[in-house]
Amino acid sequence: MPDQSRVAIVSEGTGVMDGLMQPRPLTIAHILERAERLYAHKPVVTAGAERVTYADVARGTRRLATALDSLGVPVGARVGTFASNTRRHLELYLAAPVTKRVLHSINIRLSPEHLEYIVNHAEDDVVFVDRGLLPRIWPSVDRMPKVRYWVVLPDDSGAAIPADPRVLDYDELIAGHDPFPGSFEDTFTLADENLASGLCYTSGTTGPPKGVLYSHRSTILHCLGTLAAGFIGLSESDVVMPIVPMFHANAWGLPYGAMMAGAALVLPGASADPGHLLRLMETERVTVAGAVPTVWTSLAPELGAYDLSATRFLLGGGSAIAPALSETYRATIGVPITHSWGMTEISPVGAIGGTRTQHRDATAAEQVAVRAAQGQPVPLVNLRIVDVDTGRELPRDGRAVGELQVAGPWVAGGYFRVDASDSFTDDGWLRTGDLATIDADGYLRLVDRMKDLIKSGGEWISSVELETAFASHPDVVEVAVIARPDPRWMERPVAYVVLRDGSATTADELLQHITPMVAKWWLPDEVVFMTALPKTGTGKLSKSALRDSMHIA
Amino acid sequence: MPDQSRVAIVSEGTGVMDGLMQPRPLTIAHILERAERLYAHKPVVTAGAERVTYADVARGTRRLATALDSLGVPVGARVGTFASNTRRHLELYLAAPVTKRVLHSINIRLSPEHLEYIVNHAEDDVVFVDRGLLPRIWPSVDRMPKVRYWVVLPDDSGAAIPADPRVLDYDELIAGHDPFPGSFEDTFTLADENLASGLCYTSGTTGPPKGVLYSHRSTILHCLGTLAAGFIGLSESDVVMPIVPMFHANAWGLPYGAMMAGAALVLPGASADPGHLLRLMETERVTVAGAVPTVWTSLAPELGAYDLSATRFLLGGGSAIAPALSETYRATIGVPITHSWGMTEISPVGAIGGTRTQHRDATAAEQVAVRAAQGQPVPLVNLRIVDVDTGRELPRDGRAVGELQVAGPWVAGGYFRVDASDSFTDDGWLRTGDLATIDADGYLRLVDRMKDLIKSGGEWISSVELETAFASHPDVVEVAVIARPDPRWMERPVAYVVLRDGSATTADELLQHITPMVAKWWLPDEVVFMTALPKTGTGKLSKSALRDSMHIA
Repeated sequence: MPDQSRVAIVSEGTGVMDGLMQPRPLTIAHILERAERLYAHKPVVTAGAERVTYADVARGTRRLATALDSLGVPVGARVGTFASNTRRHLELYLAAPVTKRVLHSINIRLSPEHLEYIVNHAEDDVVFVDRGLLPRIWPSVDRMPKVRYWVVLPDDSGAAIPADPRVLDYDELIAGHDPFPGSFEDTFTLADENLASGLCYTSGTTGPPKGVLYSHRSTILHCLGTLAAGFIGLSESDVVMPIVPMFHANAWGLPYGAMMAGAALVLPGASADPGHLLRLMETERVTVAGAVPTVWTSLAPELGAYDLSATRFLLGGGSAIAPALSETYRATIGVPITHSWGMTEISPVGAIGGTRTQHRDATAAEQVAVRAAQGQPVPLVNLRIVDVDTGRELPRDGRAVGELQVAGPWVAGGYFRVDASDSFTDDGWLRTGDLATIDADGYLRLVDRMKDLIKSGGEWISSVELETAFASHPDVVEVAVIARPDPRWMERPVAYVVLRDGSATTADELLQHITPMVAKWWLPDEVVFMTALPKTGTGKLSKSALRDSMHIA
Repeated sequence: MPDQSRVAIVSEGTGVMDGLMQPRPLTIAHILERAERLYAHKPVVTAGAERVTYADVARGTRRLATALDSLGVPVGARVGTFASNTRRHLELYLAAPVTKRVLHSINIRLSPEHLEYIVNHAEDDVVFVDRGLLPRIWPSVDRMPKVRYWVVLPDDSGAAIPADPRVLDYDELIAGHDPFPGSFEDTFTLADENLASGLCYTSGTTGPPKGVLYSHRSTILHCLGTLAAGFIGLSESDVVMPIVPMFHANAWGLPYGAMMAGAALVLPGASADPGHLLRLMETERVTVAGAVPTVWTSLAPELGAYDLSATRFLLGGGSAIAPALSETYRATIGVPITHSWGMTEISPVGAIGGTRTQHRDATAAEQVAVRAAQGQPVPLVNLRIVDVDTGRELPRDGRAVGELQVAGPWVAGGYFRVDASDSFTDDGWLRTGDLATIDADGYLRLVDRMKDLIKSGGEWISSVELETAFASHPDVVEVAVIARPDPRWMERPVAYVVLRDGSATTADELLQHITPMVAKWWLPDEVVFMTALPKTGTGKLSKSALRDSMHIA
């Protein structure tokens, strides 16, 4: 490298020349070794289990690195994890990529079919499993024959550990190996920054799940994006709690981001109990937390009972945040829920909502409207909307609706071992399948999923706008609007609603409530009350399951 | 690109594979087009001249891009600027690199010999000059024969404009050309991110000035570094004023950083008058400003007369900030001056000072001591200290003193068209020539320049520590300590001191003042009072000039 770096890379013939900067790669090894050098003392808390430091995490990571070698896990091989948010999972987040293996975090809520498909498709060489999750994965084990080892991550679940030569214990495994003593960063060359570092599968609402293969470069750039002030702005003074699971789209980059920033990290473990999460936020003085809207909804009723005065930023993503929910948080603890728009394909953060300086003098209602938008793209991310029929770019006027497309160095350019040309444009942008507007300030507003839009009498009805209208009723806990085939109008909207316990609100009252908010012909033909709505493996509302149930009915 | 991006870049044979992310380059064109899309309305103020927006700057940039084409400036050619901090200089900061030319910002305070050397060495094809600076550059014009055009940037100086066919007017030039209509970003491929984007020469205190050639990649990564929360943390809510000249080490990345973040930008123009600068900070509600210590010293006496309540962050760099000066700011306006350690070779920001969470419970005196340090490296930057004799890395214990070396993607790996192997180690790190300690928290403390250390009786005396001790006396405005050859001790320290106007402090009183702070044998043999200390072209104290004068005396 030294010689290479000092050669004048000047092509005098063409007049064009390269800069003379050091050829240093962007690598996750930098995150690990930066934390060792600067933030060794900062805490990493696993709820109910242990309170360690980044120094401890680094030591565990260095032992795990050697252990992976001793297990004969090849460079480039996929290292599966089937685990909740814990210190050991964080060590896997680090040890796999810094040794040039690929971290494959597996969604623990998948159906056995999808689980087996994904593990086999990824060809995981070894899988690390929370002890408490063994009962979910072990019945499938013989249908995932390429996995050579199943390493159990200890917890206090008491779940049975199969007597099987393929089963190892994490703590015993790493205790038996010396820590890797050198610099992982020094083992990377400039070209290595493009090496695969992580693999996440999309939830596969249409067709089989598809794998998104991240690189060290994309991960580090995304990480810098999470540090950018005015967006998430992770810093050393933060205490970051990813409630969003580490098996879900890299936990939105919060673990890597917190560690690069030197923030304290609070990992909530396996429990999603609202009291548990709120107590943790209170005790650990959490400043930044991220979760999907259903979690924020579950926490909302108990907010007032906890001291959340340390909180400065709450992220919501995965689906739209109802303005009413965000306002509840703002009214109760002084911090709204900020939209984070992203996708597994986008590492996953693409845009961050919230107000900017131009909204300082806006009315409260106007500010609520701004916060309802998905926000502005993070630096290095480009967004555009295009006409669905012609593919031509549409104006950024806040009115034109088109398919949202996205480009950037942490955006997928393809899927792992599957042809998915449909998902990309000829000029290499990702087609998101979302319908959206972009305004003159670059604010993104999602209108609907292309497949969720309802076509009635030749006009479009937005299921999202209807859902927002329903959600503004105080008794509505969850709502989904989907299209029902209609002989006259082609499609008509039907609303599926979950009311809060004990509510006696009627369908007519709900329709009356939303009448001032939407066009009259948008009013759903039917309101179906349910006790719960179907969810995908990532906890998102599953409209396809609703559609299926409708077809069955 | 689309095809390239979707090919599975998997080398099954070796088991190693690349991620499947979009091959998007890091390019300054993104900064420009991001500002157009998101921050078009945000202000760019040039003091005493005009108040425009990023939309206006973008339009000017797009016209200038076409104008550079029409002048026949080749791709890769150097575009010189000899200008103060103005909107037009910002357009040049953008137009040159986004059209794949190289911005060469020239220090306006250079001697004619260095000026001519640099312009000829860079082979500037065209140079843009502030009208008010023409008298400084025009006498040299015929000794810089490769410059085809001298384009005058209008100002109200009234300086004579030579009647010469090589002389053009900036406003006329760009008014005569249509704006480039397309996306500059789309003209860049992944490989182009390594293209040279900027060129700055070091001040050349030893030997001729050396050119540092930045790339788009290094500039964008450095820019993300300036956005990282907890370091400089530029954001959309900031109003950024680079007092540090745009001809000096990229104005520390503040112009590009502010624009990427969407911050308002306040450019102070040509005047360095303290009243002018403070008035500007007050009126524009500046939140972040950066300047060399001599400027902060000149502003200090008048601080209390202005409303600087908007200020959140003041950067000082170029040389060490005396704790007393920083404390004056903290006591008067509530904001200390934060050390920014860097070099032209480091784009230039390498580390940022200030306290972190571990100092929250420290005493005021301990916090002052922390703030006196040069701070922690910015993400992606690695620092180490090595033994000067053996080249072996020294421990990070806050005590071991060694040469500071630095690595990172925005650190020079060589110099432009000159062999400077001595400046780099065998493993490609930059040798800074600074002596420093690094402590267990990764805090950098500069001890001295290697060549400024005083060797007396076989022991080392730190000129910097002596200067800090002198500077803590309320009457001392400036101080420099250098070595005088001594027949018995080899070298002995001599202090050169500038007292504040009207002070009658004696040499004995000063020596008495510092006696409790340093070892007795460190006390300088002589204190020489001066009305001003010699400066380099970048406004830094010139110890070599002092040494020269000593040899003459």
